Amino acid sequence: MSVGKLFVISAPSGTGKTTLLKRVMAKIPGLSFSVSHTTRPPRPGERNGADYHFVSKPEFLKMIDRGLFLEHAEVHSNLYGTSRAAIDQQCKAGIDVILDIDVQGASILRRTGQVKARYIFISPPSIMELEKRLRGRKTESEEMITMRLANARTELLAIKDYEYLVINDLLDDTVDLLSSIIVAERARSHRFPSGRAIGNILHS
Amino acid sequence: MSVGKLFVISAPSGTGKTTLLKRVMAKIPGLSFSVSHTTRPPRPGERNGADYHFVSKPEFLKMIDRGLFLEHAEVHSNLYGTSRAAIDQQCKAGIDVILDIDVQGASILRRTGQVKARYIFISPPSIMELEKRLRGRKTESEEMITMRLANARTELLAIKDYEYLVINDLLDDTVDLLSSIIVAERARSHRFPSGRAIGNILHS
Repeated sequence: MSVGKLFVISAPSGTGKTTLLKRVMAKIPGLSFSVSHTTRPPRPGERNGADYHFVSKPEFLKMIDRGLFLEHAEVHSNLYGTSRAAIDQQCKAGIDVILDIDVQGASILRRTGQVKARYIFISPPSIMELEKRLRGRKTESEEMITMRLANARTELLAIKDYEYLVINDLLDDTVDLLSSIIVAERARSHRFPSGRAIGNILHS
Repeated sequence: MSVGKLFVISAPSGTGKTTLLKRVMAKIPGLSFSVSHTTRPPRPGERNGADYHFVSKPEFLKMIDRGLFLEHAEVHSNLYGTSRAAIDQQCKAGIDVILDIDVQGASILRRTGQVKARYIFISPPSIMELEKRLRGRKTESEEMITMRLANARTELLAIKDYEYLVINDLLDDTVDLLSSIIVAERARSHRFPSGRAIGNILHS
């Protein structure tokens, strides 16, 4: 059995990443979602353990002390972290894992060199369109929208550090493209210990 | 406009590559096929200029002398070659090009370092299945089948030099997978000069 692969996916807030990932997860078998920890309060409809592990700040700080996070970062005044255990378990079981973290978290993860992953950036088609989507949410204050747009401008500068750039214009097309990337990655030869792949073909 | 990308695709004879490539070409826009030159006689149904440029051995040798080939090789006692001009023109026009060459040709191309390409290996699910497909063609002598199977065993050892391994078991699935690889490659960030990609998103 081959080991699962890790896909690190970042997108500016409001890009439509959550909807996109749910659609891709439903479409592709053998793919799971790494649930992050956060100290931010749940948004309407978000469930603990499914969207995030929602924890208090003291709990989060204790987890940092115990070295349980692969990476953690502060974003919009809240703490976010990726626990090492969840990813390890799934990858060892041969399941590909999607890790949804922001640009800052991805940058830390990359620098630690602790995991091998493919980095995918999901971008809005334009800043104007992003603003429209953020306002459409009707959950954000004017101040939050201004902050998120400013953050998005900064985050876009990180595209160069990602291996794939997926522009989320029409959702159906984006679902197809992201699915294609994951499926194609499974066919990349380094997934197949070459001797075994050849052996299977020659002797079956 | 971005420059087209080159996909080098190799498969043991009888793997079903020709049918596969025709289906993928029909499915994906902006993709063309580099037509190779060969001195082997056309098979039933093959058209000059579409499947191959069929040329005489003296013509082929003259082209070698004039340096017109990116690579050329002798396979099954026939000469095969890839002319530099066809690929250059299409890539410059922003069209992705599929170059269908054998393992030996791909190896030469890789070593020359003259072109940047993605290398994809199409494999039969097994040698037994390959033999079945070769017999199914009803165009090959027993001697030819034996030679092609022996060659296939050698060619499989080259899988390790390819970036992607696509096992052609069920044709529909293989068409989807190869299409996914090409579409995913188009989203790989090095295709987007980063400054421009970011500029487009920020200022539109």
